[in-house]
Amino acid sequence: MSSEPAGAPGPRPSGTGEAVAVSRDEFDALFDSVRTWGRWSAADRGAWNRVTAAHVGRAAALVRDGTVVPLGRPWDTRPGPDNTKPALHYMSDLGDVEEPEPAAYKDFLGADYHAKSVSHLDALSHIAYRGQLYDGRVARQAIGAGGARFGAVAALGPLVTRGVLLDLPAVLGVDWLEPGRAVRGRDVLAAEEALDVRVVEGDAVLLRTGRFRRRRDTGPWDTGAASAGWHVDALPLLAERAVALIGSDGDNDVRPSPVEGLHSPVHTLAITAMGVPLLDNLDLEALSAACAGAGRHAFMLVVTPLNVPGGTGSPVNPVGVL
Amino acid sequence: MSSEPAGAPGPRPSGTGEAVAVSRDEFDALFDSVRTWGRWSAADRGAWNRVTAAHVGRAAALVRDGTVVPLGRPWDTRPGPDNTKPALHYMSDLGDVEEPEPAAYKDFLGADYHAKSVSHLDALSHIAYRGQLYDGRVARQAIGAGGARFGAVAALGPLVTRGVLLDLPAVLGVDWLEPGRAVRGRDVLAAEEALDVRVVEGDAVLLRTGRFRRRRDTGPWDTGAASAGWHVDALPLLAERAVALIGSDGDNDVRPSPVEGLHSPVHTLAITAMGVPLLDNLDLEALSAACAGAGRHAFMLVVTPLNVPGGTGSPVNPVGVL
Amino acid sequence: MSSEPAGAPGPRPSGTGEAVAVSRDEFDALFDSVRTWGRWSAADRGAWNRVTAAHVGRAAALVRDGTVVPLGRPWDTRPGPDNTKPALHYMSDLGDVEEPEPAAYKDFLGADYHAKSVSHLDALSHIAYRGQLYDGRVARQAIGAGGARFGAVAALGPLVTRGVLLDLPAVLGVDWLEPGRAVRGRDVLAAEEALDVRVVEGDAVLLRTGRFRRRRDTGPWDTGAASAGWHVDALPLLAERAVALIGSDGDNDVRPSPVEGLHSPVHTLAITAMGVPLLDNLDLEALSAACAGAGRHAFMLVVTPLNVPGGTGSPVNPVGVL
Amino acid sequence: MSSEPAGAPGPRPSGTGEAVAVSRDEFDALFDSVRTWGRWSAADRGAWNRVTAAHVGRAAALVRDGTVVPLGRPWDTRPGPDNTKPALHYMSDLGDVEEPEPAAYKDFLGADYHAKSVSHLDALSHIAYRGQLYDGRVARQAIGAGGARFGAVAALGPLVTRGVLLDLPAVLGVDWLEPGRAVRGRDVLAAEEALDVRVVEGDAVLLRTGRFRRRRDTGPWDTGAASAGWHVDALPLLAERAVALIGSDGDNDVRPSPVEGLHSPVHTLAITAMGVPLLDNLDLEALSAACAGAGRHAFMLVVTPLNVPGGTGSPVNPVGVL
Repeated sequence: MSSEPAGAPGPRPSGTGEAVAVSRDEFDALFDSVRTWGRWSAADRGAWNRVTAAHVGRAAALVRDGTVVPLGRPWDTRPGPDNTKPALHYMSDLGDVEEPEPAAYKDFLGADYHAKSVSHLDALSHIAYRGQLYDGRVARQAIGAGGARFGAVAALGPLVTRGVLLDLPAVLGVDWLEPGRAVRGRDVLAAEEALDVRVVEGDAVLLRTGRFRRRRDTGPWDTGAASAGWHVDALPLLAERAVALIGSDGDNDVRPSPVEGLHSPVHTLAITAMGVPLLDNLDLEALSAACAGAGRHAFMLVVTPLNVPGGTGSPVNPVGVL
Repeated sequence: MSSEPAGAPGPRPSGTGEAVAVSRDEFDALFDSVRTWGRWSAADRGAWNRVTAAHVGRAAALVRDGTVVPLGRPWDTRPGPDNTKPALHYMSDLGDVEEPEPAAYKDFLGADYHAKSVSHLDALSHIAYRGQLYDGRVARQAIGAGGARFGAVAALGPLVTRGVLLDLPAVLGVDWLEPGRAVRGRDVLAAEEALDVRVVEGDAVLLRTGRFRRRRDTGPWDTGAASAGWHVDALPLLAERAVALIGSDGDNDVRPSPVEGLHSPVHTLAITAMGVPLLDNLDLEALSAACAGAGRHAFMLVVTPLNVPGGTGSPVNPVGVL
Repeated sequence: MSSEPAGAPGPRPSGTGEAVAVSRDEFDALFDSVRTWGRWSAADRGAWNRVTAAHVGRAAALVRDGTVVPLGRPWDTRPGPDNTKPALHYMSDLGDVEEPEPAAYKDFLGADYHAKSVSHLDALSHIAYRGQLYDGRVARQAIGAGGARFGAVAALGPLVTRGVLLDLPAVLGVDWLEPGRAVRGRDVLAAEEALDVRVVEGDAVLLRTGRFRRRRDTGPWDTGAASAGWHVDALPLLAERAVALIGSDGDNDVRPSPVEGLHSPVHTLAITAMGVPLLDNLDLEALSAACAGAGRHAFMLVVTPLNVPGGTGSPVNPVGVL
Repeated sequence: MSSEPAGAPGPRPSGTGEAVAVSRDEFDALFDSVRTWGRWSAADRGAWNRVTAAHVGRAAALVRDGTVVPLGRPWDTRPGPDNTKPALHYMSDLGDVEEPEPAAYKDFLGADYHAKSVSHLDALSHIAYRGQLYDGRVARQAIGAGGARFGAVAALGPLVTRGVLLDLPAVLGVDWLEPGRAVRGRDVLAAEEALDVRVVEGDAVLLRTGRFRRRRDTGPWDTGAASAGWHVDALPLLAERAVALIGSDGDNDVRPSPVEGLHSPVHTLAITAMGVPLLDNLDLEALSAACAGAGRHAFMLVVTPLNVPGGTGSPVNPVGVL
């Protein structure tokens, strides 16, 4: 990977963060360096195998204030620059379809959720690189029109673990990271220090870029074209820390992608190489406030994907409990 | 309500449990007796107002073994006698729609979930009685084709509280309750005693009837026509105990309904009178085993409905954590 | 209605066409003047009652060249300024879901078609004015979450009749009518004269504004905000001519609406007052060329809506046969 | 193919029609014998290339009575033995979502239509045999999650041609053909003679088995397990006659399939070998009555599939015009 020039002439202004270009060869070396293929017998649970009963217990022990913070965005049926596949919501009964008493009100929900709007979990079947899914499974054999036979969200099930919020805007003293801002390994280390928290094995690490603060203040934009997110050079650190889950208020990848010819390199490293599911499009504004108020950035995180056999992920509404 | 004859000639065989008939007048008196309208300012959260930060903390403190038990059934796209509105699951990308590297696999999920198959939460907008929703809101004014303006699932948000499993088949020493078996107030009391647990304020009480054990052994049946579930006479006890949430592996109502002219009287009492959301169609088999193994029937329950503005409920995959 | 000043100082530049403002009282008078309520016993077929077997025969007799021209736009799954409710298209089988030989390829189609993209037919249940549907039916009683009990598209069935293309851009010698251009009664008369055709009883009159020529040349725009279409003052003429069907390459209404407080006055007059279904969003470019080539603007038109009980319309792909 | 024994001992009882077993080798020989690959430059229109402007004109000339008969079944949202993928129909606006005047009523329609309920057209991308689509195209290369790049329904467009109803129950003097009854080549010849009609080049041949008469009288059944339909031995005759389209009130294939290891051999021969699209699940009851009343079994047929780029077919509501 194109690391920074050794003799960089001095500190960059905080909050600028360039998405340093990475060649495909550098990416491939990185991919190999963080790969955990063959490590777990329950391969399609990937890094969730790290979350033992002990982790669950430690996560629950973090609950002190009893504050429950939902992280799921509103189901959005209107198209927009960051909502190219609007969700569906139709009333199927307004008390006038079935027998009258009591009157039942019912609705239909639908979503092609893997985009920039719905808060969702990516299962290990979501991304293949060079034809292979996580654990070296051949994607073409493992997934078809009937769904995923390997890496389905139903194989993941729910997750209860410690969540850590890396609140970059808070660390940098800005309202949000500008679209295109890459969050690199050194940013993670700086955030840990500033927030007095350390990401450890089995953790879920959530990156706040302030996307939804920015969206509220300046309106929606095409986050596929430009958004703050992880740079691939943060992934070796997260791999070393043995995280179970990575999430963000964006889709995790900084955009535009710094890797030549790869539109979602962070997805590729996390999901396909490391076996780490992703949480995309979380609304982390309330969690930011809650963590700031509580003076701590670690909490119990609960993620309960729908039990979809063959599903490549699921819309979710994760909760942080402080 | 037709209470039992005073001089009942002796104990009934356990496990028989008749669905004693209830007249409409008796039902209406019952409705009034458990009604909590006007009690809470955040009216569309109903009984979830009972779940304070202290409850959350006590729930988390129940986590000892670190066992996480999902309660959501598999998303079922095939019709059947208990699945008249099959869920939808289509692959929207098999790595061949968008740019090639990495290859992305995506899917569309859809469901008209308020039926007998999908595990789901009923919000307070789901049921109206005599034209009124919970808190006396006029249903016709509060809900339209655009969704619910009162009692939407987005107003509920997630719930973290103590869950109590009333494992009736375990109590009665049977594999399952036969379809039509009503679970009455006295059954609740007997279960509490047998399981050494007591339902208290803010609890989520989950009734296991063994539906999915029976389904696995004997195949699916039309649960709308016959299923084990709560009898209305259990509701005053649950109201007195001030529960926050009621759930079941069926749809909570014993069927056929014992109340003349009302197809879902338990829905009506819980949701419309008491402001208590319901969890329908949970798979409680694994939780039954986990509780039996742990020797306790209280645990942390986390329910994270999708954040659907205007939604009358949500598909969910709740977790019990022991 | 604000008719034109008697002493108009001279001809307006062709192609300018102002959308002369109409007060609500003028509109209501117009509504009453074209109303056909009570005229037909098969009320929910409205003006299609005019299309007798003789009309069908005369329409078929118009077929000379054997040219078949489809008028339906491509099913569009991408959002855009004129596609706020993108259609759905998912492959449900790629030869890998069911038994292998032969391999079957299948797909799911879905659409909330009443918008600006899908070519569709509006049935008589689509529009109510002051609470009433066509024929004075009370909308609230006639339509619910289960669909329309009056005026459903299934009651219309298919239509075979004479179609007349009013090709305004051809008449005016322009590529298209600019968004906002109102097509008034006098424009209809001028077009009839220029194209040597006369709209008569039972005809389907199709207005070409050149929308899709413009869209191809200049890109999509928000046609809800500005589009060429009928001015309400053309409707009395069409009512007098006793048309069965009105269609356009837009949604028929000129936008912005010239009638105070009414967003779709042409829909209201045609559907609700006159009982005339509408065809919206037709692609009339090929038909324009075919008519020009054949030197005539009347042809056999066949519209075959899907047979949806309770439906308020249907996506369609009508054909003109010359 | 297992042709009938030369010295068959005498006439079989009419209406019995056995589905004579066919080996895979016999089938493959049959496939080769009717194959039209390479014949047309507009390959994905297949046999519709046969329908010239002259055919359209001759079809229109058949209109005498002006009777329009729709052939599409009602959109069915309820599951059943012959409706395993119920269609969707939801109201998206009940006059209360958008601006109030006029009030607009709108709905969402959806269907995974390639099954036994929805009347639909199969395009040439619907069926592959031994990995190949019509014209020898490699299915895996031609169709993906984004739809069909060869043989899409949008390439077909609408069809106007002569339709011929082979009303087998009328010919045999029965109410319907029993499920499992195979319609063989000799049945076609007998029907032509009895009905005084001859299938010729470019025709659409529609087989009535009386399915919907039977369904109305005896209730729905699993037509995938047993239904009357074409035997493969009728296809050489239809190939020789150079038909453009084949349809039925079933799904065209007699079921159970008489060909070892092939669930839909008629689909395979018609679509994949001959390039002849199919119309499945037509309701031919009204057409039967209309033809009987008119004393002729040839008419103008108009089929207008939705214009779905990449679609493997389309729900349709074809019309016969007499």
